[in-house]
Amino acid sequence: MEVVVLAAGQGKRMRSALPKVLQPLAGRPLLAHVLDTARRLGAARICVVHGHGGEQVRQRLDAADLCWALQAEQLGTGHAVRQALPLLGDEAQAMVLYGDVPLITPATLQRLAAAAGGGRLALLTVELEDPTGYGRILRDGSGRVIRIVEEKDASAAERAVREVNTGILVAPVARLRDWLGRIGNDNAQGEYYLTDIIGLAVADGVEVVSEQPAAAWETLGVNSKPQLAELERIHQRNIAARLMDDGVTLIDPARLDVRGELICGRDVEIDVNCVFEGRVELADGVRIGANCVIRDAVIGAGSRIAPFSHVEATRMGEACVIGPYARTRPGTELGADVHLGNFVEVKNSRIADHSKANHLAYVGDADVGSRVNIGAGTITCNYDGANKHRTVIEDDVFIGSDTQLVAPVRVGAGATLGAGTTLTKDAPAGQLTVSRTRQLSLAGWQRPVKNKQGN
Amino acid sequence: MEVVVLAAGQGKRMRSALPKVLQPLAGRPLLAHVLDTARRLGAARICVVHGHGGEQVRQRLDAADLCWALQAEQLGTGHAVRQALPLLGDEAQAMVLYGDVPLITPATLQRLAAAAGGGRLALLTVELEDPTGYGRILRDGSGRVIRIVEEKDASAAERAVREVNTGILVAPVARLRDWLGRIGNDNAQGEYYLTDIIGLAVADGVEVVSEQPAAAWETLGVNSKPQLAELERIHQRNIAARLMDDGVTLIDPARLDVRGELICGRDVEIDVNCVFEGRVELADGVRIGANCVIRDAVIGAGSRIAPFSHVEATRMGEACVIGPYARTRPGTELGADVHLGNFVEVKNSRIADHSKANHLAYVGDADVGSRVNIGAGTITCNYDGANKHRTVIEDDVFIGSDTQLVAPVRVGAGATLGAGTTLTKDAPAGQLTVSRTRQLSLAGWQRPVKNKQGN
Amino acid sequence: MEVVVLAAGQGKRMRSALPKVLQPLAGRPLLAHVLDTARRLGAARICVVHGHGGEQVRQRLDAADLCWALQAEQLGTGHAVRQALPLLGDEAQAMVLYGDVPLITPATLQRLAAAAGGGRLALLTVELEDPTGYGRILRDGSGRVIRIVEEKDASAAERAVREVNTGILVAPVARLRDWLGRIGNDNAQGEYYLTDIIGLAVADGVEVVSEQPAAAWETLGVNSKPQLAELERIHQRNIAARLMDDGVTLIDPARLDVRGELICGRDVEIDVNCVFEGRVELADGVRIGANCVIRDAVIGAGSRIAPFSHVEATRMGEACVIGPYARTRPGTELGADVHLGNFVEVKNSRIADHSKANHLAYVGDADVGSRVNIGAGTITCNYDGANKHRTVIEDDVFIGSDTQLVAPVRVGAGATLGAGTTLTKDAPAGQLTVSRTRQLSLAGWQRPVKNKQGN
Repeated sequence: MEVVVLAAGQGKRMRSALPKVLQPLAGRPLLAHVLDTARRLGAARICVVHGHGGEQVRQRLDAADLCWALQAEQLGTGHAVRQALPLLGDEAQAMVLYGDVPLITPATLQRLAAAAGGGRLALLTVELEDPTGYGRILRDGSGRVIRIVEEKDASAAERAVREVNTGILVAPVARLRDWLGRIGNDNAQGEYYLTDIIGLAVADGVEVVSEQPAAAWETLGVNSKPQLAELERIHQRNIAARLMDDGVTLIDPARLDVRGELICGRDVEIDVNCVFEGRVELADGVRIGANCVIRDAVIGAGSRIAPFSHVEATRMGEACVIGPYARTRPGTELGADVHLGNFVEVKNSRIADHSKANHLAYVGDADVGSRVNIGAGTITCNYDGANKHRTVIEDDVFIGSDTQLVAPVRVGAGATLGAGTTLTKDAPAGQLTVSRTRQLSLAGWQRPVKNKQGN
Repeated sequence: MEVVVLAAGQGKRMRSALPKVLQPLAGRPLLAHVLDTARRLGAARICVVHGHGGEQVRQRLDAADLCWALQAEQLGTGHAVRQALPLLGDEAQAMVLYGDVPLITPATLQRLAAAAGGGRLALLTVELEDPTGYGRILRDGSGRVIRIVEEKDASAAERAVREVNTGILVAPVARLRDWLGRIGNDNAQGEYYLTDIIGLAVADGVEVVSEQPAAAWETLGVNSKPQLAELERIHQRNIAARLMDDGVTLIDPARLDVRGELICGRDVEIDVNCVFEGRVELADGVRIGANCVIRDAVIGAGSRIAPFSHVEATRMGEACVIGPYARTRPGTELGADVHLGNFVEVKNSRIADHSKANHLAYVGDADVGSRVNIGAGTITCNYDGANKHRTVIEDDVFIGSDTQLVAPVRVGAGATLGAGTTLTKDAPAGQLTVSRTRQLSLAGWQRPVKNKQGN
Repeated sequence: MEVVVLAAGQGKRMRSALPKVLQPLAGRPLLAHVLDTARRLGAARICVVHGHGGEQVRQRLDAADLCWALQAEQLGTGHAVRQALPLLGDEAQAMVLYGDVPLITPATLQRLAAAAGGGRLALLTVELEDPTGYGRILRDGSGRVIRIVEEKDASAAERAVREVNTGILVAPVARLRDWLGRIGNDNAQGEYYLTDIIGLAVADGVEVVSEQPAAAWETLGVNSKPQLAELERIHQRNIAARLMDDGVTLIDPARLDVRGELICGRDVEIDVNCVFEGRVELADGVRIGANCVIRDAVIGAGSRIAPFSHVEATRMGEACVIGPYARTRPGTELGADVHLGNFVEVKNSRIADHSKANHLAYVGDADVGSRVNIGAGTITCNYDGANKHRTVIEDDVFIGSDTQLVAPVRVGAGATLGAGTTLTKDAPAGQLTVSRTRQLSLAGWQRPVKNKQGN
């Protein structure tokens, strides 16, 4: 089977400079979701028909397994599929998907493909509470599809039909070539409608069969920002349901956003209003507090992320205690039982087991050993205005509060740095190193008084 | 047309010391919303009938275009309107609105006013799924309104009527004077009901016409905190829908709060759980991360606000990168491409193009030039306990980490401050300035040992 | 009356290592909610039948007023109740509750208990929209309960019955002993069903009466994480409704989480997305900003907590101004009008009236007087790597920015500490104390240049 994905539309109602199929759902372009689904079907070929913003679309999503057909003018869905025909195999079945219908599931499409065997045309239809605006599926007495009638051409009886066309179908490529050569554009829009092949198929004695999706939301399309938001919520609700079925405790499934892949061990608990982006792994017993943002991270078993933490491109060992208000940036690697407290930022650094930075600190471009205590207000001065340098802190070091480590610099094992030290040279192992000046008190000193003009 | 707004009720069920019409919806008093709507109608006069907490109401919302009528005792809606009559023009039409019905739209009221032409009384009615508790609209065979019957007086057939009275109406002032002089208070509450004028109008041969709102929620009133919350959510949902129709991408429309005016350019994206207060302008391509609070701000094109940022009374140029956890306070003016990182606070300061303060810093009462790098832990000591002083940092300055700038102080162009410097005098341009003492190591030093009594 | 709580189930569908009845609802085990309810009924005895993970359950929830019966094998609800019989009084009435049905209300159970008087068996039933899967209540012509029929045994007519069995019932202990000795396990599961006693009661001529809960959600059970989340939301919605009825302003009742007890004064306002844990008291006029996490705290009248604050085990006086991004940790006691600003952490400290720490500071193990100003970047160095020491700051002290107070240390009343001071000895009252070295500028100094290999 080969897949044609129609992705040429402008999406004017989106009111955006971005082509419609690049609008993000769960952080990825609508079209990317459809391509993923096509790949999961094991399609032999995937042809994307691009048009509006085509170069941008292609640049963003091109891949070795895709071929691209340009629809220079948007003259209807039939015309769009026609652009892909030269790329399709004569003996193949073609499935037509839509770049703006992102939630269609592989399971539904597999059923559709199966139904299309034996030269049949298989159409995906859906039963709607309110079918207004959609093409109705008309069947003969024995239930066979005979025609699709558009809303405006439908009689009152036909309008009462609640089964509608989704546009998704599978047909033999050879037949498609024939039918698409014969459909016309004699309609108000002057467009070539893919739908018109149904009538031709019936006339040619080709059996038209239908399947329905497991859920109506699978066939929803995106034409506006409200619809985009609606699909985002359906998609997130589905993800939440799947996580909970797998045993994850979600305090509020309606306040979870997963934009990518969230892989959870046993007894993971996620509090309200968290956002996960990219690929995130949470091992057994991990607890994520309220309002965290986690992106591209691996969190070890039993670790606990307190509220308001922002974790990005980080690997974390077991039993870490992070936050609240901790931020780890790309290149952070934490051992086991590492504690990062409030208002602490770590970047491109390794921190080994049992080390702690519990308050107001910046650890950047550093290698920190085990059992190190990094005092409040400690800053690695990793940037000299031109280059970045590394700080090395060996095992069992105690760094006093408000210390600056001017990199490149090394603190030897077991060393202690006094509070307020500006460390510009290496600190020897086991010793106390300080840079401190004498404390003086001025007895006669007067506090400034409030300026009359004030500010 | 003149408008009478009834705003004298206590709202006992609100269980609040604040008069009901001052309870906030989207951060502003209920009554303020109604007054805005009245103004948008171009009312020649707006009379507010105040009573409970009247002085507080008047003080909070008084304006040149309002006149105030005191209803010293709350003796019913008819009595309330009567208090306003002396202030109304004889030839005018009067529209009666309610200070606790805040979501009524100008469009609906315009239709109502139009219907009231030619000496007619125009009544706003609404069809409810469940009309229980409301006065039903009774009509004659030809559909003309003949009476309003209260729930308790209604027959079974009358109770089945789902069209109910909203209380909002338009009538000629001269007629109102007559009718309100004739209605009685012969009822359980001993109150004068405005509703009773309908019967008088019909009896006088005045035609009573009706209009219905575009949506039923327009006519919802607030009598309790649950209702206040319900209207808040309806109001926010409406705002979200309008933003999305205009092309704004909202990741979750149910988790957006706009309390004031949010003006968005093209391709603006707002992540979950953001709060906007006051007047906020987001230029083209601005992206607001999850969990931000933005108040009275102008954000330049392409700027990106990362999660957990708190932006207040700030102007920001193009392509700024703010947060996560950045806080800008009133008087912050940022140029283009300014970066403020985590745990950074800026107050009453100008920071020019391409400057950065990426970690743990307080920049207060400062003028910062272009291409300045403010190191982690930098603090402007702007307050001496009595007065605030300014710090000036000229272009191309590099400020080492953990530096204190004791204002008033100036750092010359291109100067560098060493890490840990306490700057008490101006730093000359182009030079390295430090205040640093010698680093010493004590070889024989012993770490403290854990106290047995511990703590 | 005595209560038997069935709490032996594994809850395999929870996919968790934690026994089902220990799964948290609003932060507490499901079973704890049921035990609370049983206690509120004034039960003379509460017997918990435990089994799966029984030791863990008992350890977690044991209390002086509970007795425990072990159900070593899980052979059905009838078998479970039988394990408790030896612990029950012969003359008592026994009420059977379920450890995984946590939202049942005392009011409903009181009605049920009342109905059970006079030797009757009282059954709690509930009318469901969709009764699929539940045992249907069958009644005779005069409305008396005669039998419960399980879904699989029900005729079409019986399946149409929408009144179903909840399993909650009250019966005389003596009767229970008899009936539970007679029920069999001749069914597909080979289990003993408590339900079967209904038939025996009817056969014995015991009157079976029924009551219904005020709301259907009271009888919902938890068998999976989606159900757990559903009950969490129902529970939170109920709490929000109660708070609003009491006059609390909730900006979005769907975004409030209360896990414990939230006691509010008059005119309290809580913004979106706040989490309350443990016992929290908010006095009159307290306003909590968006996205706050508050645990075990007492907040004085008129205090205002700005967004992103994290308050834990803290007592706070009147008119405090806290946050945004302020964190108070256990042992924080604030006087009146204390201000804590952004990126400030306070732990195990007392701060007296009118004192302020407005930016980037760590105040730990300190006693701070009145009218003290703690500058930005101030850090109490309370930990020497082995022991914690206290810092004492007397009234009217002004602490310059970026000061380290190396505890134990005392700052005398009215003292001033210069910016950047490392205070290692006590600072005398009324004087200016500094530790500061000379500021030097190097004219010939060259900035580092960008390394070609870069990083």
